[in-house]
Amino acid sequence: MTLSKILSRTPPSSVSANKVVTSRLTLQSRGQGFVDITDEVARFVEEIGAREGALTLFIRHTSASLTIQENADPSVLADLSAVLARLAPENAKWTHDAEGPDDMPAHVRTMLTATSLQIPVLNGEMTLGTWQAIYVIEHRRLAHDREVVLQFVGLAD
Amino acid sequence: MTLSKILSRTPPSSVSANKVVTSRLTLQSRGQGFVDITDEVARFVEEIGAREGALTLFIRHTSASLTIQENADPSVLADLSAVLARLAPENAKWTHDAEGPDDMPAHVRTMLTATSLQIPVLNGEMTLGTWQAIYVIEHRRLAHDREVVLQFVGLAD
Amino acid sequence: MTLSKILSRTPPSSVSANKVVTSRLTLQSRGQGFVDITDEVARFVEEIGAREGALTLFIRHTSASLTIQENADPSVLADLSAVLARLAPENAKWTHDAEGPDDMPAHVRTMLTATSLQIPVLNGEMTLGTWQAIYVIEHRRLAHDREVVLQFVGLAD
Repeated sequence: MTLSKILSRTPPSSVSANKVVTSRLTLQSRGQGFVDITDEVARFVEEIGAREGALTLFIRHTSASLTIQENADPSVLADLSAVLARLAPENAKWTHDAEGPDDMPAHVRTMLTATSLQIPVLNGEMTLGTWQAIYVIEHRRLAHDREVVLQFVGLAD
Repeated sequence: MTLSKILSRTPPSSVSANKVVTSRLTLQSRGQGFVDITDEVARFVEEIGAREGALTLFIRHTSASLTIQENADPSVLADLSAVLARLAPENAKWTHDAEGPDDMPAHVRTMLTATSLQIPVLNGEMTLGTWQAIYVIEHRRLAHDREVVLQFVGLAD
Repeated sequence: MTLSKILSRTPPSSVSANKVVTSRLTLQSRGQGFVDITDEVARFVEEIGAREGALTLFIRHTSASLTIQENADPSVLADLSAVLARLAPENAKWTHDAEGPDDMPAHVRTMLTATSLQIPVLNGEMTLGTWQAIYVIEHRRLAHDREVVLQFVGLAD
């Protein structure tokens, strides 16, 4: 284990948990790649008056997934796609191939990334870092409608 | 980044958060493979009268993990097992081998999948997609008793 | 799917959800490796009087990540580092290399591990298993200040 030190912990803020707010986001992918949904999720947080609490994102599919990744340079996303293609190539002699050569790789890539994510909300905003964006990753070759459940639990107006 | 469009976002439902309900599920694996726990988790959600809120699943082990994957064709699970075996093979000259050749691969496969999952509950049911099942993945060769903590936070009867 | 059986499910405990408590933990890594933050997170849980509820950990970076892994033998961490290095090597001809040869591998390793984790709290303590520790994984070569948001939602004193 690397030596390291804890530098600080901010005094905890504490508020009443009073609400659960849920919505379903539907988007259309354009085939394999990353879809940035950060702005739409931020709009949800703002519209429901979320102040402090936990935001859950859950994608209702097994061939598309979620990740939080770099928001600045698109070449990062190209490299991430290349890695996923290498870890689960289409020509790997999959047993399950009835739904096309891109189906089983899509399941693998989903398993290696995320189906659910949680982002704390504080002072009315997601606590994303400067370089973080929220992405849906479409793993199939064709365009698909994809659903993401957004659910906030905590203090809201 | 792939072009795409947001198609819709449903009007948010909003209810009072009033409860935390926790239970520990113990299961016995039969050695390496996927154990479908969807029905048992659904029973928990129903029995506690969960209406709307976040369900957390947490597995208390470092050589077994959680994933949400395809529930229909068992060949998908065979292929996922094959990928995990390829990403973390038993014969990779691990430093840590005191607990047997399947131990370190089990830790790696745990790290690459999930220790915690969250599933939003809405209208009294988990918002799983049509093809989604919840699995415990046993990564050790021998049968083990495994514990999964189920915890609901939100509105319950 | 492996044959298996559900052995038991404990009677659910049920308490009122009354609070959201949030804090930001800052730590300094010493370059690539695993930083054990379990004790510091346990102190947060104790100090805020958390009794039962969901603890979210969220790391605000795309080149450092979270994992829950074996706490006993340091050779496990060495092997995990070796696997991450093999899955995303520095010499893989990344498109994105403006920030140094260790930057794109850091993004990949982040994607394959976790940005958010949830740990249920029960009876005033995290429900970690005997061998589980919570780690920040620093994926860059140089030391960095890293922020982890800790947020508890549930019953607290």
